[in-house]
Amino acid sequence: MLDNATRAYDRLTLAPRPRQGELRFAATLADAVAGADLVQESAPEREGLKQDLLREVDAHAPESALICSSTSGLLPTRLQAKMGRPERFLVSHPFNPVYLLPLVELCGGEGTAQDAIESARLFYGSIGMMPLVLRKEIDGFIADRLLEALWREALWLVHDGVATTSEIDDAVRFGAGLRWAFMGTFLTYRLAGGEDGMRHFMAQFGPALKLPWTKLMDVPQLSETFIDEIARQSDAQAGGASLQELERKRDDCLVAVMQALRAQEFGAGRTLADYEERLYALAHRQEGAQRKIDIALPLRLHRGQVLPEWIDYNGHMTESRYLQVFGDASDALTSYLGVDLNYRASEGSYHTAETHICHLGAMQAHEPFELSTQILAADEKRIHLFHRLFRSDALVATAEQMLLHVGTKEGRVRPARADIAERLRALAAAQSSLGKPDQAGRKIGGWQKRSG
Amino acid sequence: MLDNATRAYDRLTLAPRPRQGELRFAATLADAVAGADLVQESAPEREGLKQDLLREVDAHAPESALICSSTSGLLPTRLQAKMGRPERFLVSHPFNPVYLLPLVELCGGEGTAQDAIESARLFYGSIGMMPLVLRKEIDGFIADRLLEALWREALWLVHDGVATTSEIDDAVRFGAGLRWAFMGTFLTYRLAGGEDGMRHFMAQFGPALKLPWTKLMDVPQLSETFIDEIARQSDAQAGGASLQELERKRDDCLVAVMQALRAQEFGAGRTLADYEERLYALAHRQEGAQRKIDIALPLRLHRGQVLPEWIDYNGHMTESRYLQVFGDASDALTSYLGVDLNYRASEGSYHTAETHICHLGAMQAHEPFELSTQILAADEKRIHLFHRLFRSDALVATAEQMLLHVGTKEGRVRPARADIAERLRALAAAQSSLGKPDQAGRKIGGWQKRSG
Repeated sequence: MLDNATRAYDRLTLAPRPRQGELRFAATLADAVAGADLVQESAPEREGLKQDLLREVDAHAPESALICSSTSGLLPTRLQAKMGRPERFLVSHPFNPVYLLPLVELCGGEGTAQDAIESARLFYGSIGMMPLVLRKEIDGFIADRLLEALWREALWLVHDGVATTSEIDDAVRFGAGLRWAFMGTFLTYRLAGGEDGMRHFMAQFGPALKLPWTKLMDVPQLSETFIDEIARQSDAQAGGASLQELERKRDDCLVAVMQALRAQEFGAGRTLADYEERLYALAHRQEGAQRKIDIALPLRLHRGQVLPEWIDYNGHMTESRYLQVFGDASDALTSYLGVDLNYRASEGSYHTAETHICHLGAMQAHEPFELSTQILAADEKRIHLFHRLFRSDALVATAEQMLLHVGTKEGRVRPARADIAERLRALAAAQSSLGKPDQAGRKIGGWQKRSG
Repeated sequence: MLDNATRAYDRLTLAPRPRQGELRFAATLADAVAGADLVQESAPEREGLKQDLLREVDAHAPESALICSSTSGLLPTRLQAKMGRPERFLVSHPFNPVYLLPLVELCGGEGTAQDAIESARLFYGSIGMMPLVLRKEIDGFIADRLLEALWREALWLVHDGVATTSEIDDAVRFGAGLRWAFMGTFLTYRLAGGEDGMRHFMAQFGPALKLPWTKLMDVPQLSETFIDEIARQSDAQAGGASLQELERKRDDCLVAVMQALRAQEFGAGRTLADYEERLYALAHRQEGAQRKIDIALPLRLHRGQVLPEWIDYNGHMTESRYLQVFGDASDALTSYLGVDLNYRASEGSYHTAETHICHLGAMQAHEPFELSTQILAADEKRIHLFHRLFRSDALVATAEQMLLHVGTKEGRVRPARADIAERLRALAAAQSSLGKPDQAGRKIGGWQKRSG
């Protein structure tokens, strides 16, 4: 599970994440919660079991610890009933896979302090999740009530032989499910209402609510026969794929969908973008305090890992991704020089005028890489640089580039601000004695002369 | 609506689509259906209205025409009741936006011929949709029964003041909705069941079906007050965005999600990939029959449009996308020379050894572009070429490239197959009198000498 989570997370974001914690199995509950800031109870969905467990957690955890339950629908007022300090308890309900889906529902009980909910909201937000604080305590909270309603209907459809598990899944994922990835039912229906919005939709489709388009709340008797039938259909649907294969496919698709939405700055993509921005800002501050870089050597400012979607039909990293990682290294350099969002908005930024790429090897999926950047020459308007792309210690490709400083207002080349030009000048001077790289200053086509 | 559809579709796929049809408003029903192959009835959801309309359509449409209804849930047996030839009628229920979502539910009534359903299945499949044929006739079919169950519950949550429309939407789109974009409820729950799959899941979560996690089938009374409250919350949620803005955001997100899933070859992405493959194959056959290319001029084999997600923080097409479109033009060239899937699998393919890009201008979102490709030199192992990227007639960037022919088995450079080498030789000979482009044979860094 942790391997899958790490793998998925590596693909989700290249932002510098906080150092990973440690997984430890404790022999006793007291040992498990000693020194904890947060306890997340994820025991089976049995009220009595959880009540007893939470009472013990409460007795042993530090006074300052926040205690949360992952329950999918049990009421916090009942879960906290046996706790000595119920005020620091609430439900924080995440969704599978919890390492990717941003939603976490926060629901306090009658004994929960407002402070505890606020602490939880800040905490889950700080790790890139989307806390949804409930206004009222209710069985199943919000999300699971919606899921459960759909699930009851789905079970009836299988039970009555209207559709198989696979057909029901298709009815969701080829239709409304694609919308639900970023837009809920209400906003979707508002659009269906046209210019008159929700009011028109309710007038148009309200009457359909009187039609027998759903079964009762009732669910089919979960007899052995019925469960066998569902299991049989589900096996057929999985088509022999293993749990791990399916989990990875699910995670890969989730990552792809979230990255697609990040580019749209919408829904879960916006949450991800905001989180990454905070991580980068944090790393930047930490580096600023700690940085000890030898500027007389090519700078190593960018590293990463080849994502599977960067691979082409040859099984190697596709051509344009080389320029992407070289561009990322150029961004890392200008960021190092002091070009940030403010500077770009008010002063200027560096644009690439010319690039010469040489391919010396190939990269495959998941391979880690690192880039070094050598300054060949620079003045207040230009940076002539040379990137090397390494896989372990092997040189895989190089890019010689000419960057020009373009003024934001002018829209044409002009000198960089004095502090940036000065930092660049110092860097170029420090690296002036490095030798000219073999692949620098090349032109394409020498072979024509050699071959006549 | 058509503008939105065209815009979305242009972004969904670059594959050569069939020529667009014509929209015409007819004064009479007889005129509207005269000569039709397919009639799609999309009148309001009133059974009597649809029955009368379909009877008239049936009376005037050619005998060979297929007649379909877009109804979200009315029964085909009842809709076809007044038709003279009910056997050619069925429900084909698409989902909004119908120009993007692949799902179409097909449901025949008692009078429907099996042939009609099969014709409809083939037709909707041929335009890139995902037909789901129902096994039984049922109110609301499959998808809308599921949606309706969720929707009833959502209305109760608003009615009871548990959550706002915006919170309910968030509970979906930051959680289960992200999964539903590619994986339905049953497969998702199978994964939640761990190694023991669906059977374990049912044992673990089956008991929760006995908990009061949903309301009855009943819906709240749609009083004026309640509808006002929903409309008020929906307005707040939309935050002043216009219908068109919301529709475009929805379409952009859908396109991004579907393209993300295409890269994963999963769900709706697989449907899209299959459709594109058929379109490319068709265009290839048609071009093969019609192609008249003057090989003495630079070849114009690739054109496209700058997608908004190709834009960087400067508002211009991001650096790596230039190499992407140049790479696409190289692929178009080798495809023109005869390199196809078979050849790549058994013989070899062209790999880029070196690239020199010069930027002369910038491209913005939605701008159309075209590339020309000049052969500077070639032999049986190498292609030395020069791409020009044009926006209208302005030259925006150039790329000089050296491609090497790498054998699939050998994994190293070897001569191309004789027919491909011969086609390349003829092309190089025909273009040998074209002048050397200004940007060819350049090396970076001349300014250093000039500036001392």
